[in-house]
Amino acid sequence: MSYFDAILSPPEIDLLPQRDLRGAIAVVFDVLRATSSIVTALSNGASGIRPVNTIEEARDLKTLNPNLLLGGERNGERIEGFDLGNSPLEYNESVRGREIVTTTTNGTVALRAVAHAETILAASLLNATATAEFLSKHPANPVILVCAGTFRDPALEDIYAAGLIAWILQAREMRDPALVAKSVYAANHEDSLALLRSAENGRALIRKGRIREVEWCAQVDTINIVAELKPDGFIRSI
Amino acid sequence: MSYFDAILSPPEIDLLPQRDLRGAIAVVFDVLRATSSIVTALSNGASGIRPVNTIEEARDLKTLNPNLLLGGERNGERIEGFDLGNSPLEYNESVRGREIVTTTTNGTVALRAVAHAETILAASLLNATATAEFLSKHPANPVILVCAGTFRDPALEDIYAAGLIAWILQAREMRDPALVAKSVYAANHEDSLALLRSAENGRALIRKGRIREVEWCAQVDTINIVAELKPDGFIRSI
Repeated sequence: MSYFDAILSPPEIDLLPQRDLRGAIAVVFDVLRATSSIVTALSNGASGIRPVNTIEEARDLKTLNPNLLLGGERNGERIEGFDLGNSPLEYNESVRGREIVTTTTNGTVALRAVAHAETILAASLLNATATAEFLSKHPANPVILVCAGTFRDPALEDIYAAGLIAWILQAREMRDPALVAKSVYAANHEDSLALLRSAENGRALIRKGRIREVEWCAQVDTINIVAELKPDGFIRSI
Repeated sequence: MSYFDAILSPPEIDLLPQRDLRGAIAVVFDVLRATSSIVTALSNGASGIRPVNTIEEARDLKTLNPNLLLGGERNGERIEGFDLGNSPLEYNESVRGREIVTTTTNGTVALRAVAHAETILAASLLNATATAEFLSKHPANPVILVCAGTFRDPALEDIYAAGLIAWILQAREMRDPALVAKSVYAANHEDSLALLRSAENGRALIRKGRIREVEWCAQVDTINIVAELKPDGFIRSI
């Protein structure tokens, strides 16, 4: 049976490996900043981004293939010895043609938790409509919008971005968590930057002087790319 | 440090017993229908409602005290041999002066999960402003709004009711889940009945011909009672 659902918090993500996701399209949101950086990298010509769980795994892959770029964060900061942090502004022209291995706190965990879905997408405000259009072309597939959150808590901006997808596709009957996300978008749809600034992650980035990253991630539909996690472990533009 | 937080889903509720809730006021919402029935019972003169986990516990208490009324549900239906189900319409004049033992699926679990909070309230749309006013009189206490949900999933109507409290108290700085709830209220504040009808629990009750119960629970601020879980295990009007 088809459903249109959402996962609002990390403790619910922990339960996803046990959930039947046959035929489902899982869409993962980690708006500040992992999936925004992934989508930005693809728009700047990166050939693929591979999310991994650990710093060691990333370093091992680079040992095997020195052409890889390493990116990611721990507690919001760049990892020692890595080429890139988690700011989408770093994923600029310099990534053109490159493959990137990335490890972030919540985004990677969420992507792994839905590994058994039929299709896995990484989405952000930047490519919301492109992602929604992909879903609208597959109306028979169940949809699960996965809000990656921060550590063990829900993140407002992830639920807001999921809500934008639900808003665009609102003709479909939705489960309660998708309706929650849709309402979060509806209540704040006129000003995505204000929403991101009010979120805990946005406030923390602004305190660190990273308002430009928040502004970047708050842009809606500036990138017309669908980002899919492929069987080889790399997220690529469809 | 004071915080204003919310818990959106049952898997997050499972983690509450490990969370530091010193000084906190925990407010539990199970709008369709446990906390709405509790608040209705108190407004009709019930002297107290004791939530327990199991049917056996409820029956044992009645054996000790035959004057108790037994109420509650399993899978939304009245329990065999119980005096009352979980419809707020049953908690009418007949409960005046009586003590009630109740066992419901999610509401009871949520109340138990916050047993270590300083103050525990049961809230619904019916007594939202009364509850908010209690919180506003205790500005130094951390607040955690606990949305009981349904089985393992978030319930839209619980998040909406929590959001009404957040909306009333919106001068306070809030954590992301409270902002999520506030947005859910803000996006739907003009029509609580439409919101409850669109929620999964509302749809299920309507399919069973129980629209009047949904209508009852959708009433906002018709009851001026604050319902507190006391150390003796009974919820009473403050």
